[in-house]
Amino acid sequence: MNNKKIRPSEFELIEELFAPLAKSQIGAVGLLDDCATLSLSTGNEALYSLDTLVAGVHFFPDDPADLIAKKLLRVSLSDLASSGGTPKGYLLAANIPEDISYDWLKLFTDGLAEDQIEFGIALLGGDTTATTGPLSLSLTAIGEVPAGKAIRRSGAVIGDEIFVTGTVGDAALALRKLDEIGREATAGEFPELYNRYVLPQPRSVLGSMLLDIATACIDISDGIYADLQHICSASDVGAEILQNEIPLSQSAQKLVQGNEDLWQFVYGGGDDYELLFSANSENRTLIESLGERSGIQISFIGRVIPDGGVSILDPAGKKISVENVGWRHF
Amino acid sequence: MNNKKIRPSEFELIEELFAPLAKSQIGAVGLLDDCATLSLSTGNEALYSLDTLVAGVHFFPDDPADLIAKKLLRVSLSDLASSGGTPKGYLLAANIPEDISYDWLKLFTDGLAEDQIEFGIALLGGDTTATTGPLSLSLTAIGEVPAGKAIRRSGAVIGDEIFVTGTVGDAALALRKLDEIGREATAGEFPELYNRYVLPQPRSVLGSMLLDIATACIDISDGIYADLQHICSASDVGAEILQNEIPLSQSAQKLVQGNEDLWQFVYGGGDDYELLFSANSENRTLIESLGERSGIQISFIGRVIPDGGVSILDPAGKKISVENVGWRHF
Repeated sequence: MNNKKIRPSEFELIEELFAPLAKSQIGAVGLLDDCATLSLSTGNEALYSLDTLVAGVHFFPDDPADLIAKKLLRVSLSDLASSGGTPKGYLLAANIPEDISYDWLKLFTDGLAEDQIEFGIALLGGDTTATTGPLSLSLTAIGEVPAGKAIRRSGAVIGDEIFVTGTVGDAALALRKLDEIGREATAGEFPELYNRYVLPQPRSVLGSMLLDIATACIDISDGIYADLQHICSASDVGAEILQNEIPLSQSAQKLVQGNEDLWQFVYGGGDDYELLFSANSENRTLIESLGERSGIQISFIGRVIPDGGVSILDPAGKKISVENVGWRHF
Repeated sequence: MNNKKIRPSEFELIEELFAPLAKSQIGAVGLLDDCATLSLSTGNEALYSLDTLVAGVHFFPDDPADLIAKKLLRVSLSDLASSGGTPKGYLLAANIPEDISYDWLKLFTDGLAEDQIEFGIALLGGDTTATTGPLSLSLTAIGEVPAGKAIRRSGAVIGDEIFVTGTVGDAALALRKLDEIGREATAGEFPELYNRYVLPQPRSVLGSMLLDIATACIDISDGIYADLQHICSASDVGAEILQNEIPLSQSAQKLVQGNEDLWQFVYGGGDDYELLFSANSENRTLIESLGERSGIQISFIGRVIPDGGVSILDPAGKKISVENVGWRHF
């Protein structure tokens, strides 16, 4: 059955490709019922994040199907992480055009299967429909969080310290290189950047550790500058971050050393999917220990101030002007 | 702001059209955060049903936007009802092409607003994206049900009686008339049928009353014959239903009296969104009283038998051959 090149029927799709993804999810009832059920631990509430990727808008139609699948899932898992949630399952809506083959869909579901193991979740339900338009994939990640404890963008308090996980700007610099030198050269010369772009690493384990510690949190999808603005706007505060504290990968460091202008991609480039959060300064040591426990680099980068928006300060304390204020996907 | 004909930005869409729909849903946080939260009553579990409608596939592009919105929502609410669930909220993913205007989207969200009041739910979250393809709308209805009590397709037991709500075949007969005589004439001459087709009535109140009473339940979307087959197949049983017990609307009665062949639309036509369920014969009186309490007609139509698939028997006890075995949307 694996060599079919033609478009499968909905029945084949569900029976052969999607049902195996739902096998460990009891409430999915083998994708054979009208509804799926999901139980949460006592005292928890459900957490939802929905993201849609459209071919030609959010990914290149020739991107590998398994990487598209993983990116789709990971983008939503990153949202759950930013709210302090633990992933439980996901729902998938797929609008599938005529020219998508069985083999493509097989690779797509193989990608999902791998990430299901990676993140300890399974498919809960969904719907597949034909479309005359481009391939469109909507995924709703479902998580859980102690009731009332979800970390919001709106909780940052003046005097809080600001932290970010991992390194910043890699995905945007990869995208710049993809435009400049193409996929093969980017993957070959800048694997660190390229891998960050094609395969985000949602901070799922760390997210729930930040419950009751982070006062506000967001995952960096629009760029560190724009996403810090989102926190400040929701929390009614301002923020100052220090350029020389922003964590860069070795590849990014080399690039910005060679061309100062590329710093704008660090400030304004999206798709990093690192966690950007604020916390009371009393928790600095605790946060450092969480970084060690989770194996994720966490960097102090600045402070929450009364207001005046977001400023990035150079080593001399001078405000850096930021040109690119993040991606707009619509 | 209401006379804009041009396509709105994502910000306008969310701020002006979608955020008001989420106002009463605390966990939606004004659609401003990465995740939405939802609490369930103690002892309940979450129930999910996802449906996608694509313009040109599932509805006519010139169907009124408010009716498309309501149909989208109601199709999923009908699934929750068939599982015995109580609706709590919904998530919406919309792929919006260039030529959809602000006014169209305003009418669409007005339709959702009306049904939110009708069914006591509110928007919890979602995602809107641009597409070069047709308008595509995916809605996930979220409900709750006492843990482990969801009514499944698989619980029908030999000897159970089979019941159906409302009347059967109206939507399929409307679709036939739409093909034959067009929208205006169908709406004018067969309002009872036309209204059933454009605006399903999910049996939301009755659904949860059937918990612990219905042994298996499904909502009729593929046609009474095919959907009863789904129950029988999942429950590993057969079923016999009696043609002259199948409840027909007055309009449907007239049509099948004039043309016997139209019975095939009653057996095989989809989109009725009535509940088809099995129950122990001891519960017949209780079921009749639920019909009275909910104001919904419930008709006994047949019995669950050992196996042999689904048979429809004419008044002489002879098996009727069914040609059209339901719609396939893919």
